[in-house]
Amino acid sequence: MTGLTTRKEITVIREGERIVTGDEVVVETPLTIYLNGEELVTLLCTPDKMESLAIGFLRSEGLLTSLDDVVGLRLREDGGAVEVELNNKSVLAEKLYGRRTITSGCGKGTVFFSALDALRSRPVSGDTVSLTAGEIRSLMGELQERAALFKATGGVHSAALADDRKILLFCEDIGRHNAVDKIIGECLQQGISMDDKVLVCSGRLSSEILLKAAKIQLPLLISRAAPTTLSIELAESLNITLVGFVRGRRMNIYTHPHRVKR
Amino acid sequence: MTGLTTRKEITVIREGERIVTGDEVVVETPLTIYLNGEELVTLLCTPDKMESLAIGFLRSEGLLTSLDDVVGLRLREDGGAVEVELNNKSVLAEKLYGRRTITSGCGKGTVFFSALDALRSRPVSGDTVSLTAGEIRSLMGELQERAALFKATGGVHSAALADDRKILLFCEDIGRHNAVDKIIGECLQQGISMDDKVLVCSGRLSSEILLKAAKIQLPLLISRAAPTTLSIELAESLNITLVGFVRGRRMNIYTHPHRVKR
Repeated sequence: MTGLTTRKEITVIREGERIVTGDEVVVETPLTIYLNGEELVTLLCTPDKMESLAIGFLRSEGLLTSLDDVVGLRLREDGGAVEVELNNKSVLAEKLYGRRTITSGCGKGTVFFSALDALRSRPVSGDTVSLTAGEIRSLMGELQERAALFKATGGVHSAALADDRKILLFCEDIGRHNAVDKIIGECLQQGISMDDKVLVCSGRLSSEILLKAAKIQLPLLISRAAPTTLSIELAESLNITLVGFVRGRRMNIYTHPHRVKR
Repeated sequence: MTGLTTRKEITVIREGERIVTGDEVVVETPLTIYLNGEELVTLLCTPDKMESLAIGFLRSEGLLTSLDDVVGLRLREDGGAVEVELNNKSVLAEKLYGRRTITSGCGKGTVFFSALDALRSRPVSGDTVSLTAGEIRSLMGELQERAALFKATGGVHSAALADDRKILLFCEDIGRHNAVDKIIGECLQQGISMDDKVLVCSGRLSSEILLKAAKIQLPLLISRAAPTTLSIELAESLNITLVGFVRGRRMNIYTHPHRVKR
């Protein structure tokens, strides 16, 4: 985890005692995405898989649809910027990117959120994925086991892409949206299909996370945490199965329970 | 909590049993802020204290400095928009508001984040606030006790303004930045001074939360959760005391420990 945490001197008060000691703190860093030479956005993130974050963010915002749209991708040497060159198809999307939405969730979330954004998302078609409750519990257990940065600092969310057996891609970020965008970006970069996979999250399932999943036709989302009304309503209409509060021997299935096998 | 939660039919799997039942889910709703007739931003939030959210958001973004700048404030009847009219002084600020930053944190966070933003914040001057560890623990206990929406849904963050004895203002929101902005907005609306108070948060202390506090000259931030390197560095240079992981009989003081009395 070199570069992802820094040792800080802190004062710990415990049982009335006051001790000066060292503590691992998670690194937060601004990352500016330049699109075709223009500054697009600055994300605050964990400095890891930053190219994937940029690609995933642009995918979530509808500014690219596949890696074929990307003709250049470069992390600046100082780590503070990713420069992305897209082919011409993306010009319209870039123009549409004027409307600002700031979101509810850990991490940046959808800038281009709107009813429009929800409407542009088409229902997930495939019903190729179905897991047993035991498989879901086991994926959540694996997510927690792998959350090394969380264990060290308590300051990050994790996200993973999984099939019915195991986690294929895993990442952690101070932002829960960043974590999901990193997974999406990495999938695109590695050519991994997403429409037959499961997204596993540590954080809450708000509408932005749901819309990110919908855009990549991801059929099943599972989380340790809570959903919102808006995410449930979107999942309902977009044919996405939403499973929350996966904790111990319990879980709540909010929508389309047919993907959780008996 | 009328209007803040909705009952949804869900499938609960517990100890291998599958039960269809009702569950309270936290409402997430888009709120568009119109500034002098122009659409500025859409926040995703919990539909409560929405005028305060708008005022606090504009204060955090540097688009207003006091309630004197506000000549009109109206929540639209459908609850989907707050219309704010500011006096002329704010025109320059509005122009500066071109740069987009999307943030790491639950909730929208600083749009206008940049080194500039940090530089514009001046160090907190006053050293009027100091609390004992016991008082800090007691404020955190009160925060958790009052978190009714969290207890019902598990899906929100809470924030409060407190003096050394008790919580003065309290709110909950699906976004941790929203929760802080609601507190800031309510302070402005009620004419409560902030430079001699304590901000109590359930969520992580990322750089955006720190910058919000700095802009209102708030000297002491306490949270159950983790800070980041950037928030610690900002707190260090802005003379803000940052206390994290306030849990049970323990807490970590990250910066300026002199405000935690022995």
